[in-house]
Amino acid sequence: MRVLFAAPDAIWPDWAPVLTRLAPEMELVRDADPAGIDAIIYAPGGPINDLSPFVNARLVQSLWAGVERIVTNPTLTQPLARMVDPGLARGMAEYCTGWTLRAHLGMDAYAQDGAWRNGLTPPLADGRQVTILGMGELGRSVAAMLGGIGFRVAGFSASGRAVPGVEVFGPDGLDRALARAEILITLLPDTPQTRGLLDADRLALLPRGAWLINPGRGTVLDDAAALAALDRGCLAHAVLDVFRVEPLPPDHRFWSHPRVTVTPHIAAETRPETAAPVAVENLRRAMAGRPVLHLVDRRKGY
Amino acid sequence: MRVLFAAPDAIWPDWAPVLTRLAPEMELVRDADPAGIDAIIYAPGGPINDLSPFVNARLVQSLWAGVERIVTNPTLTQPLARMVDPGLARGMAEYCTGWTLRAHLGMDAYAQDGAWRNGLTPPLADGRQVTILGMGELGRSVAAMLGGIGFRVAGFSASGRAVPGVEVFGPDGLDRALARAEILITLLPDTPQTRGLLDADRLALLPRGAWLINPGRGTVLDDAAALAALDRGCLAHAVLDVFRVEPLPPDHRFWSHPRVTVTPHIAAETRPETAAPVAVENLRRAMAGRPVLHLVDRRKGY
Repeated sequence: MRVLFAAPDAIWPDWAPVLTRLAPEMELVRDADPAGIDAIIYAPGGPINDLSPFVNARLVQSLWAGVERIVTNPTLTQPLARMVDPGLARGMAEYCTGWTLRAHLGMDAYAQDGAWRNGLTPPLADGRQVTILGMGELGRSVAAMLGGIGFRVAGFSASGRAVPGVEVFGPDGLDRALARAEILITLLPDTPQTRGLLDADRLALLPRGAWLINPGRGTVLDDAAALAALDRGCLAHAVLDVFRVEPLPPDHRFWSHPRVTVTPHIAAETRPETAAPVAVENLRRAMAGRPVLHLVDRRKGY
Repeated sequence: MRVLFAAPDAIWPDWAPVLTRLAPEMELVRDADPAGIDAIIYAPGGPINDLSPFVNARLVQSLWAGVERIVTNPTLTQPLARMVDPGLARGMAEYCTGWTLRAHLGMDAYAQDGAWRNGLTPPLADGRQVTILGMGELGRSVAAMLGGIGFRVAGFSASGRAVPGVEVFGPDGLDRALARAEILITLLPDTPQTRGLLDADRLALLPRGAWLINPGRGTVLDDAAALAALDRGCLAHAVLDVFRVEPLPPDHRFWSHPRVTVTPHIAAETRPETAAPVAVENLRRAMAGRPVLHLVDRRKGY
């Protein structure tokens, strides 16, 4: 099969070796006669915007989970599959666990200034309460890793569905879930119900000195309310990976606030090592005329 | 029983409530007629140096694992027990896991300077090799927590004894254990064999850009060799919790080197929540004439 890599040149070195190693039968190209292309591997920002010449392509396989930019392309007539990377939930759990331990251990109390500040012993993890908002696949993965270390984990989900080892609060329990959150992790989706959910009133429910870690969706947080809570010391620190505008504009106060750490939307990275096998499996299914995984419903948009 | 709290005033608020809650029958005092004292809870730096007046004390229970300063006191004639805190290994595992994740995730690449540095995706933990020198109780606890997160864990121990889930190298395998250590954790005891073990030659075996985390013993590391390896970039960063002289003198280069993080001997903290039950159990044993746990052999010194 001849497959067009329709993605930014910058990511070619990350993906091409893994893809061709996994599928030696595949001819992976970056330029060719469109009619001779059997399938397309797609990521936004690449060279191809007009998909109409690819009349023989049996599949457009997105490298990313989000397909907002391709699903609305009027030249797309081929089947479109989104990426469901089995490594994504593990990467998210590692990110959240790393920042939770940084908060828990009080790492930032130790400035390199010659002062021997012992006596700030944190409790063990089983004396530390972490609350996760959002108990989907990502929230459950984070909860499992934190629980394995020993943290006391509570969760909030719209469904209130039970999760082993986690005290789950349903829709009427949000306030109680927040009130105990020494460390709050937000992994809620972007929906009309979650937009601006963490406003001044809800942030005021957190125990004084709480940490906020948001690798979910930028719209969940009221930016001005978060900054005010940080200024008052109600929030000790905010680790923010997602924003209402990305990249976060250089003049945004999140960059300069001493109690904010900005990371550049890295917690939910798709990694070639774990995602390429999914792409290859789907390309082979398309070539063989078998059902394709993670097919996008174009009317729903995902 | 009347128990003298012979420890620094500064730690009284941490210990007294936990001890008296666990043992309501205990009268915990800081000053009393020595002849009326049934047992002594001891930590160095407190008010008592002469133990000879405590003629009716049946036990001196140390709050710390290390008893170097009391075991050599010539006025000590009472039985001495050291602390074996079941929380200590858990605290050590949390410290090591937190710093390992900080190294693994590349947290320190994200300065708060307005630059959106994405594209620095780390591998998942199963693509990251951690080597632990020292596979005693602490090393095994750290290995279990890191393995639970998914890290590839290798260990080095003088005995070469097998540990589930860990590739253990014995005495002839130290060089190979170091050669694969993207993150190196040292938990070796202080013995003639380990002093200066991490010298220039052995540090040169590490993969370029490795992290060193030393919460074990300060004597294991050749300080000058470590600084030279950091200057050359062979070591990317050193997280040091233990030193040849403690507190680390304010003019030591470890404080000012940009690639060193100093923590003030906090990784192996004894915590009242987990240690007080051990002290109470031992006091009750002594009062009842039953065998005391963790009795110190005065000739050996531990």
